[in-house]
Formats: sequence, C-alpha cells, structure tokens
Amino acid sequence: MAHQVRAARPTGVLAPVLTPFGADLAPDAGRLLAHCRWLLGQGCSGLAVFGTTSEANSLSVEEKEALLDRLVEGGIDPSRLLPGTGCCALSDSVRLTRRAVQRGCAGVLMLPPFYYKAVSEDGLFRSFAEVIERVGDARLRVYLYHIPPVAQVPIGPGLIERLLRAYPGAVAGIKDSSGDWQNTRMLLETFSGRGFDVFAGSERFLLDTLRGGGVGCITATANVNPGAISRLAREWREPECEAQQAELNAVRGAVEQVPVIAGLKEIVAHHAGDPAWRTVRPPLSGLSPAQAEGLLAALSGLGFSMPELR
Amino acid sequence: MAHQVRAARPTGVLAPVLTPFGADLAPDAGRLLAHCRWLLGQGCSGLAVFGTTSEANSLSVEEKEALLDRLVEGGIDPSRLLPGTGCCALSDSVRLTRRAVQRGCAGVLMLPPFYYKAVSEDGLFRSFAEVIERVGDARLRVYLYHIPPVAQVPIGPGLIERLLRAYPGAVAGIKDSSGDWQNTRMLLETFSGRGFDVFAGSERFLLDTLRGGGVGCITATANVNPGAISRLAREWREPECEAQQAELNAVRGAVEQVPVIAGLKEIVAHHAGDPAWRTVRPPLSGLSPAQAEGLLAALSGLGFSMPELR
Repeated sequence: MAHQVRAARPTGVLAPVLTPFGADLAPDAGRLLAHCRWLLGQGCSGLAVFGTTSEANSLSVEEKEALLDRLVEGGIDPSRLLPGTGCCALSDSVRLTRRAVQRGCAGVLMLPPFYYKAVSEDGLFRSFAEVIERVGDARLRVYLYHIPPVAQVPIGPGLIERLLRAYPGAVAGIKDSSGDWQNTRMLLETFSGRGFDVFAGSERFLLDTLRGGGVGCITATANVNPGAISRLAREWREPECEAQQAELNAVRGAVEQVPVIAGLKEIVAHHAGDPAWRTVRPPLSGLSPAQAEGLLAALSGLGFSMPELR
Repeated sequence: MAHQVRAARPTGVLAPVLTPFGADLAPDAGRLLAHCRWLLGQGCSGLAVFGTTSEANSLSVEEKEALLDRLVEGGIDPSRLLPGTGCCALSDSVRLTRRAVQRGCAGVLMLPPFYYKAVSEDGLFRSFAEVIERVGDARLRVYLYHIPPVAQVPIGPGLIERLLRAYPGAVAGIKDSSGDWQNTRMLLETFSGRGFDVFAGSERFLLDTLRGGGVGCITATANVNPGAISRLAREWREPECEAQQAELNAVRGAVEQVPVIAGLKEIVAHHAGDPAWRTVRPPLSGLSPAQAEGLLAALSGLGFSMPELR
C-alpha cells in the first residue's frame, strides 16, 4: 500500500456534475471544465463527477478517464473531486478507481455492479473488496452509492457493516439516494461517528441529515442551485434554516416535474444562453418544448435564477 | 455502407457461452475456446458469446474484444458467432458492435442501455439507431435482447416496429428472455415473416416457438445440454417432440433450483473434472456445497450427463 498524504474528507455540498455533449454526442471537456469552475465558485465544496446526473454510465471508461485528466490539467483541485467509479465490470471499476486515486481525488463514489439483480450480500461484498484490494492504495476512500430506484441493487446495512470491519479507513461513507429518510436516519444512527460519513442524496434531506450527524449532500440540483444549497450547509444552525430548506424544496419540486437530468440541462442552457447544453446522450431524451416552458416558468415564479453564469 | 457478403441468418440452438475465469478472475480464453468447440460439436448451431449467462456485463470492452479475437483466431467460424454487444455506454456498444461486424460475426445480440430506468421509447430508439448508423456497415444484423427480469429495461412492440421500419435488414430479430410465453407469441404473430427472427430465451418454449414461426432458442442451459436441445430443434415436427420437450424441461427445472450461472459452471466443472470452471466473477457467487450436491443429485436422478466433455 502506498503511504501518501490524503486529501481532507469531503463535507458540505457536492454536485454530481452534468456532462455536456457536442452535437456528435462526444463529451465536451471545455464546457464541463467551465461548469466545474462555476460550481466551485458558487460555493460547492466538491464535485462528484461521473454520477447518475452526469450520465456517467452512458460514457465509456476511456471517456471518463479523459475527462478526469482534463479537469485536473485544467486546474480543478483534485482534492475537490469525488468521481463515480463503480461499473458493472470489476476490471472497469478497478481501472477507473485506480486512476482517480493516482490523480489525487478526495475519494470515489462507487455504485455496486448493477446488471445482475438479487445478488447475494457476499457477492456484493466481494465486488467492493476486490476493487479496494486491487487498487491497494492507502489513499483510497470509497463512498458507497446507494440508489436503489435506478441501480435496482441496494447497499444495505449488513453489507456496510462487513465492509467497514474489513476495510476501515478505505470505506469512508455513503451517498443515500434511496429517497427514503428512514433509511438515511438508520445509516446516521448506525454508522456515523465510525469514520463513515453520510451524505444525503437530495438537498430535501440536507437539514435533517446535518442535524442527525451527517456531513452534507450530493445532489443533482446543486448543478443549478449551488449557492443556496451551500448556504444552508453553512448556516444550518441559524434560525432561518427552516425557511432556507423550504426554498430549496420549492426549487427542487419544480425541477422534479420533468425528467431531472434533461431538466437541469435545460436550465443551464437557458441561463447560460447556450443551447448546446441541452444535448443528452441516449437513452435519455431532451425535454419537449412544453416541458421546458413549464419548467422555466415554474422556476421564474419562484424568483429563481442562476447567478453569474459564465 | 460496406457491401460485403453476409453470413447466413442464425437459426436453431445458440448457447450464451459461459465465460471461464482463472483464480485471478481474469477470463480464461483457452477454456472458453475449448467449450465453444465442444458446444458446436454437440450440435449447437451458434454461439451467443457475451450474454447474460456469459457474465458479459462483468467484463470490460477490452476483455470482450480480446476474447472474440481469440475465438476467431482459434478457429471458431465467425458466422457461428452472435456476440452480445449492447452496453450502457453508446460509445462502448458502437465499438464492440463494430468489432463483431469486422470479425465477420453472423450478428450481434443487443441489450438496451440498462442503467437508467423508465426511459422513453424515443430514447431507446435513438440508442439502437445511433449504434446502427455509427457502425454503418451493411453486414450488420442486430438481434434485440429483451430480458426485463434482469435489464429492467424492456424492448416493447412499439420500439421494434419503429426500428424495423427505420432499419429493415439491420434489425434482424429478437431474443425474448421475458419468461412470458404470451410475449413471445405476440412477437411471433406481429413480427415474424417480416425478416425478423424470433428466438425463445429458454428451451422451455422451443417447441411452441418453432410451431409459431420462430427460428430457435438462445438458452443458458445449452451450455450443458446442447445435444438434446439441438435434437428437438431438428426433430420438432416428429411424433416424439412432446416427450423430448418434457425431458428438456426436467433438466432445466433441476438447474433452476439454484442460481443458474453458478449452477451451470458447477455442472461443467463436475463433468469435466475441472474445478477451475466453478469460478464466477463478483457480484455473482458460487454455489454452496449443499446447493452443488443437490443440483448434481437431481440431474443424476434424471439420467443426465454431459457427453465427451474434453
């Protein structure tokens, strides 16, 4: 195991950064870099590139490696990066995780292999264990990515317990995108304070998560509303925190009226005056004109805008 | 579009070939090649390498390319090959499909991108369309792979109709692994006779599929029972066909008492006297000793054995 200095543990608000595409559907590293800089400038503490919102599973490993390299070479501090590296294929997860560690990333956000369903806890344990052991680097911090509505392969408390016992230090936390506060509460009560950091998967649960001992949230909406979400993460002990939470929920509610990834890209395209941002990779589809109009009208009605966008 | 001679259309019984792994979990090309030769020798008309049973989504694109190359270089007639090439990432599907066409494969078996759930028909249409257009080769034959219990992303009749109209000739058929005979019957009634070949995804439906105008089956169990399944595909008009079907069902029923992929590997390992065959890649797990014993006893009770195995 290499013994090198580790980045500080990520906390606060991380954006699962949208991936812009060109007309040829190739990832657009230039627009991605600009968006990453804007997100950090708006107060995001970190960038969970290659998440669900990033259409990361619609990218090849090579495309992800090239984008990660471009971000770091473009001046993004790797200690702010928490790239998604969990793939269906063990060999892909190992390769991408190794690259992230070598690049100095704060950690990785790791999906379970998600093709086979109803796999055993033992099979999932071995999946994560093989990645951790094959990467074999003391700097590695794995954040488990629990998103059963999409992956359809859950990461339950039994699995977490086994991983924490086997790899303390390497298994560093979880993003809970179950959408179920009872699950997040269980995670906080069971695992926080054991070197295992719980991130909510939505800013809807940010206040409750921070009050319960969690460290922040990793949320799609941070791509368009990073300032206000980050402000609540800083000011959650202040009297106006409930009002702030309600405002965040209203914006999120408007976005959730449409398919979220296409909706977020529509918002960026609109506010940046940059139609190229609307492009999604199949199997996703862009919004219909009526959906786009309804979304922008709803946000406008809430007084929402994206400040200083490029 | 390149205009070169196309292989004959696949029909009959194709095996989604098990992928053997070494102790280091690397794919074992030598054992794979030997198993492919045995399957063809036993009467399989083709080899659907890189299917669900092949643990193909647990392999990287590079690993699949290397195995495909080794099979062809090892003397497997590429016109017998129907590799799985559908990945989550458009770029991966294009790359692997292109390689299969260049290698002279009879066709490809294509999963829909399976990470995002509840995607639109339009998004799925564009996924397949982009692959077909980017590969841009008149030799390409795409067999759609409908396996909703695993992929959780179905390929419905509306999508098939659109693809058939847009890409007649390139869209050549389907493997129906829904496990639902009503769906297979609907496919046969709606699409067969339009240059669209329907394969059952299980030999349980082989007789019914052939009687309904389908062309055969692509079935996991062909890895261990290829001779008997192929015999029914040849003799399905003979009087004893119902008895043959019942015997196939009994063997399949025994295998389905355990997790199927690990079970099939256990059977090969046992009959070949080659314990290395038991290895599965995470997230799958091998059988417990009790499961293995029960499976082998059940098969033995049916008078089952694998002939001339290596």
